Amino acid sequence: MTADFQSWASHCQASIENFLDSRLPSVDCVPVRLHQAMRYAVLGGGKRVRPLLAFAAGELGQADVASVTVVAAAVELIHAYSLVHDDMPCMDNDVLRRGKPTCHVEFDEATALLTGDSLQTLAFELVAEKQLTEDAKTQLSMIRQLANASGSRGMAGGQAFDLDNVGKTLALPELEFMHIHKTGALIRAAVMLGAHCSNRLNDEQLNQLDHFAKCVGLAFQVVDDLLDAEATTATLGKTAGKDAENNKPTYVSIMGVREARERAEKLQQDADRILREFGDAALRLRQVTDFIIKREF
Amino acid sequence: MTADFQSWASHCQASIENFLDSRLPSVDCVPVRLHQAMRYAVLGGGKRVRPLLAFAAGELGQADVASVTVVAAAVELIHAYSLVHDDMPCMDNDVLRRGKPTCHVEFDEATALLTGDSLQTLAFELVAEKQLTEDAKTQLSMIRQLANASGSRGMAGGQAFDLDNVGKTLALPELEFMHIHKTGALIRAAVMLGAHCSNRLNDEQLNQLDHFAKCVGLAFQVVDDLLDAEATTATLGKTAGKDAENNKPTYVSIMGVREARERAEKLQQDADRILREFGDAALRLRQVTDFIIKREF
Repeated sequence: MTADFQSWASHCQASIENFLDSRLPSVDCVPVRLHQAMRYAVLGGGKRVRPLLAFAAGELGQADVASVTVVAAAVELIHAYSLVHDDMPCMDNDVLRRGKPTCHVEFDEATALLTGDSLQTLAFELVAEKQLTEDAKTQLSMIRQLANASGSRGMAGGQAFDLDNVGKTLALPELEFMHIHKTGALIRAAVMLGAHCSNRLNDEQLNQLDHFAKCVGLAFQVVDDLLDAEATTATLGKTAGKDAENNKPTYVSIMGVREARERAEKLQQDADRILREFGDAALRLRQVTDFIIKREF
Repeated sequence: MTADFQSWASHCQASIENFLDSRLPSVDCVPVRLHQAMRYAVLGGGKRVRPLLAFAAGELGQADVASVTVVAAAVELIHAYSLVHDDMPCMDNDVLRRGKPTCHVEFDEATALLTGDSLQTLAFELVAEKQLTEDAKTQLSMIRQLANASGSRGMAGGQAFDLDNVGKTLALPELEFMHIHKTGALIRAAVMLGAHCSNRLNDEQLNQLDHFAKCVGLAFQVVDDLLDAEATTATLGKTAGKDAENNKPTYVSIMGVREARERAEKLQQDADRILREFGDAALRLRQVTDFIIKREF
């Protein structure tokens, strides 16, 4: 990890934090408790992996940074809403997230439910902001992409598939189907929405980026499974070992630690090969990919 | 209620049902259980009050019916998602809705949570469909309106305000604040999105319609409170008398049945006065208003 990347990432993280802070409703605004919970669930935590991907993809196409900030924030809000709902007792029943009590523990279940709902709404409100792209039709297509990535044929569908299969033995293709939806779809949306803020990328380049994003999305999940299996709760900032405890199928449970690591490396090589075609413009995407795949292990 | 209105309303209800049926994911599509639950929560029930308002507002401006159908469906999906989440044990804990077991009873809580989430997403996906209006920028502003009406400063915020005040004594202004958000905002969105599908209405007319929609939204809630206080579970198709049982503030608990009825009539008169300015073009809006305010009592 170069010092240069770290300072770029810190800058992006600060930008997204400031932007989210400015767009989340104030705690002076009724209903106060809901707005407190929304801010609690979003601000002051997380590596902001999806925003970093959006910023890096935006840089590839020299997109307007203000536009990329908006779409990066929208993707992060969808991610944050999904964490709040996934942590609830009827789902994963988790009490710790990013080193803090989960939203329903800190507030209450009803507030957590409405918090997730409202964060999702705010995400779509943001992407419909005026003039993110020169052509308003492109912006409409970005909204459809975000919706596709988030809904029952994307992230929420992956979560449902996951719940349907707790305690069952999954083959690798089914596991990948789940991850392509549960985490992959939103990571892909982060890259593609960032890229679409530029009008310098042609269809072939956008397709290549989409393929890159699929590889990164899967690699991200393999690494997540490895971290959950290996890390301690303190390092992870969320309850570790939950997957094994809940008898959830993971890359580690299906292929073991060594093969899972090899799989992550293979996906990274595929991603790198695509980025090489873009030359130096893909520097940030290359660095973010390293950051995602080499975190903490 | 004229026969003419009944046949128009039946036609609209059938259109919206068909459209929703065609756009909700098939139960052949993985994750099957989630898609079953989404269809269960949306299809085959409800008076479709919000779609009727959207269709009537669309007729006022001679809007393209196909476009109005899309926005009407989107508003109905937001409404349906809110019912699924509001019925959950951590919120109103209701077991009966439209004469059927609620979604979490028929399926399970995790599925109900994801069902509401996915219905909200689908709503935004629909309003971002290609070419609902001549100008794509108008369509972006419609998406922002729908988001505003749905989020923490709209419907979800009203629900949070409601939960914060269970068991407390509310004054009338606070009760109205709650209803303006909890149900009013989405009713207003239904009217305004239907109207924005037309390009024949000027800003002054749109403002008048917005004011009309506020009156109808409040009247709708007063009538809902009256129905809950007076009707039996069988007539209502959902558990009756829940508000009093839960010690929730309502128009009836604050002003009594007679005054609440007078309030509903006053709001209807205000709404009628606005519609009169539009002449015969407002026929459907007038009829839908009657339908909303005079239902079942």
